[in-house]
Amino acid sequence: MTSSRPLEQVLANVDSTLDQSLERLFALLRIKSISTDSAYAKDCVEAAEWLAADLRTIGFAAEVRPTGGHPAVVAKSPGDAGRHALFYGHYDVQPVDPLNLWDTPPFEPSLATGPDGAKRILARGACDDKGQVMTFVEACRAWKAVTGSLPVGLTLLIEGEEESGSKHLFDFVRANKDDLKADVALVCDTGMWDSDTPAITTSLRGLVYEEVKVIAADRDLHSGVYGGAARNPIHVLGRIVGAIHGDDGRIAIPGFYDGVKDLPPDVKADWEGLGLTADAFLGPIGLSEPIGEKGRLLIEMIQSRPTCDVNGIIGGYTGEGTKTVIPSEASAKVSFRLVAGQDPLKIREAFHAFVRSLLPVDCKVEFISYKASPAIELPWTMPALTAARAALTAEWGRKAVTIGSGGSIPIVGDFKNVLGLDTLLVGFGLEDDRVHSPNEKYDLKSFHKGIRSWARILDALAQ
Amino acid sequence: MTSSRPLEQVLANVDSTLDQSLERLFALLRIKSISTDSAYAKDCVEAAEWLAADLRTIGFAAEVRPTGGHPAVVAKSPGDAGRHALFYGHYDVQPVDPLNLWDTPPFEPSLATGPDGAKRILARGACDDKGQVMTFVEACRAWKAVTGSLPVGLTLLIEGEEESGSKHLFDFVRANKDDLKADVALVCDTGMWDSDTPAITTSLRGLVYEEVKVIAADRDLHSGVYGGAARNPIHVLGRIVGAIHGDDGRIAIPGFYDGVKDLPPDVKADWEGLGLTADAFLGPIGLSEPIGEKGRLLIEMIQSRPTCDVNGIIGGYTGEGTKTVIPSEASAKVSFRLVAGQDPLKIREAFHAFVRSLLPVDCKVEFISYKASPAIELPWTMPALTAARAALTAEWGRKAVTIGSGGSIPIVGDFKNVLGLDTLLVGFGLEDDRVHSPNEKYDLKSFHKGIRSWARILDALAQ
Repeated sequence: MTSSRPLEQVLANVDSTLDQSLERLFALLRIKSISTDSAYAKDCVEAAEWLAADLRTIGFAAEVRPTGGHPAVVAKSPGDAGRHALFYGHYDVQPVDPLNLWDTPPFEPSLATGPDGAKRILARGACDDKGQVMTFVEACRAWKAVTGSLPVGLTLLIEGEEESGSKHLFDFVRANKDDLKADVALVCDTGMWDSDTPAITTSLRGLVYEEVKVIAADRDLHSGVYGGAARNPIHVLGRIVGAIHGDDGRIAIPGFYDGVKDLPPDVKADWEGLGLTADAFLGPIGLSEPIGEKGRLLIEMIQSRPTCDVNGIIGGYTGEGTKTVIPSEASAKVSFRLVAGQDPLKIREAFHAFVRSLLPVDCKVEFISYKASPAIELPWTMPALTAARAALTAEWGRKAVTIGSGGSIPIVGDFKNVLGLDTLLVGFGLEDDRVHSPNEKYDLKSFHKGIRSWARILDALAQ
Repeated sequence: MTSSRPLEQVLANVDSTLDQSLERLFALLRIKSISTDSAYAKDCVEAAEWLAADLRTIGFAAEVRPTGGHPAVVAKSPGDAGRHALFYGHYDVQPVDPLNLWDTPPFEPSLATGPDGAKRILARGACDDKGQVMTFVEACRAWKAVTGSLPVGLTLLIEGEEESGSKHLFDFVRANKDDLKADVALVCDTGMWDSDTPAITTSLRGLVYEEVKVIAADRDLHSGVYGGAARNPIHVLGRIVGAIHGDDGRIAIPGFYDGVKDLPPDVKADWEGLGLTADAFLGPIGLSEPIGEKGRLLIEMIQSRPTCDVNGIIGGYTGEGTKTVIPSEASAKVSFRLVAGQDPLKIREAFHAFVRSLLPVDCKVEFISYKASPAIELPWTMPALTAARAALTAEWGRKAVTIGSGGSIPIVGDFKNVLGLDTLLVGFGLEDDRVHSPNEKYDLKSFHKGIRSWARILDALAQ
């Protein structure tokens, strides 16, 4: 590293200004930017304006731009090197219900000491994604403070609808294609391997989400009158749900595994080396045995193998007490996580055909098709990945691992397809951050070393 | 029939005063006596007081008696014969939700012409059970009007909590055992075979109602993180629900059919003679094929064979749109209709054991046990049945059939066990009366000929 001197000063600046960095994050966390609820539309605008104003104080040309929904922040600054990166994050947060499960008010951020003795930031958005976004912003601030400029040119794109499906971002990226030009995309919305081991996410599973409704009689029936003769759609749906997985843990839908490849041997060896155990992964949530395909590593089950979960089911009487009803219909929400090689539209078709094959006489089925996005695999060899891995390894004193994420960040597909960019996914979230849940937190260590990590990565990208 | 002359006059009186009978029924139907909702507690008292007052006008000593819940009406009158009957009915009604599915306001009774050209009474409670109760009261009124007395002595017990589980009636019957003494019990809360064929219900199925909750992880999980590794309780519950019935339509719970006997050949021959077809029974609700045990008559499936229905199921996210959650738990409400020979407590145990046998590692199960009442079989040979059958056959011009009911009226068991009474179950409801549903109705013919039927039965009981 030729620029080791300014980097050390930048890191020292990060350390000495951490309190002010925290204050700024707290100010952003106080804004109730819940994107899915229109009652908070003004708060979303406020969060966008807060970010734009803050970025202007460190020399970015920052604008709050309209979209079909909540606005997006676009901020630009040139850099020392000719290279230019596009950073993506989001300022919107998940709803906070059920409020009574929060130990502290979700929009009154505070520092607390966790059961492990480590300081943690408590608030909705502390991790996802305000805390993570601010690791990047604060890294830029430190570079500007020490050198007056940035190692590489940057465009920041910070949207306000990620938690409600990024409905307008796809159009926005298409409409602003030229304006968002860059050499690589950076995203800070993923996690570490564990609290000591940094990670770069190199694959994201795709998602197919379907709702299936089984309909039998044309009205709800009294089970005292019709029980024993009339088809009960809950029984039919139960059979369908029960048939999705075989006893071997495999998904029994014909054609489901078409195109799915095994891991390259070297990656598999790497993953085996991580030694992820059921105890470590499932123990904290009260489980002991992985339920995936027999003969696979646990880490394969959650990162590189496709999965299916029924995310919701409902039918008949679900209130307190009893009602002797045979309902007319029952429905389930079913999602599939896809890996490279699987075609989301073919998976959807295969699922529909599978359900129809299990449908007895006198039953109809209706589907609602939601998302269908393919898996994304990033090139293991891209220069930005090599640079970032070295930077992360230097910061954390442990080799940064490349992992797959079970989750999906659909915009990454568009960065590739529309802007031609590969994306470097680096983040500092931990398994126990309770994102999307009550008592969301972000370790102070994640925030602090996250800023230092980005400071290093910006430097490395300029090399 | 030795008393044929006064009976003919009584029937003529029924015919000539039908308009006034209807007016009285409408007055009772206007009272919103929904027992399950405490907001209507005053309306329940009003209905009880209305009935007591009406019964006093025809010479009953009528009282509104407190129970632990809504009051019960107890009304007495001596009769010409030494025999005494206890009549049971209920003045409370089911809730009216969803209100928007009603074509006319549920508590504004009206007469309308149905698609078959027949007049029908429209209102909540038109059939269940205000209309049915008033067939009996109006028959008494006609006897009093013509002869100044009743053929047999009567005690009327009209409760206000049948639709919410008769919670306090059992204690009330025990506490008032001596006061409710009689030779036979009469109930008007059942149906006809069809609109031309009267029926006496001689068996009532028992009921075991259970709620089963399957619990896996100790919290809700993100399926993007844990999908493929963590046990999903919806899948487990789906398998359990799907395993309850075999492909032969039989219930696969070990021991479930212990003690169940086949029909006596003569009863089976009678039932075959009724010629109930799937077209006739299932066609009107949009179904075509009975799903019960292979090789059984449809009428057996709904009347004399035990059944199981899942009445409700819920787990995970059931709102609009999508959420990628693996829930911590999923639950189902499951009810069994029992026949003579089955022990409800053994059935409950067998169900629990069955569920546990299908429970994989890392899953717990919790049960909530609701009702557990045995089936009731009335003696085919009791004198009241023979008398009532002759009376009904005379009124309707068709042989009254003896049928089993798929439903349950738990108090009938207590009449036997506490008061030592057999119960004669006669009613004039029809399959399409939509009891418990929007647009409940009672055919004017059911009401009119129901009154005439009871007038004849009272006469026959005195013979």
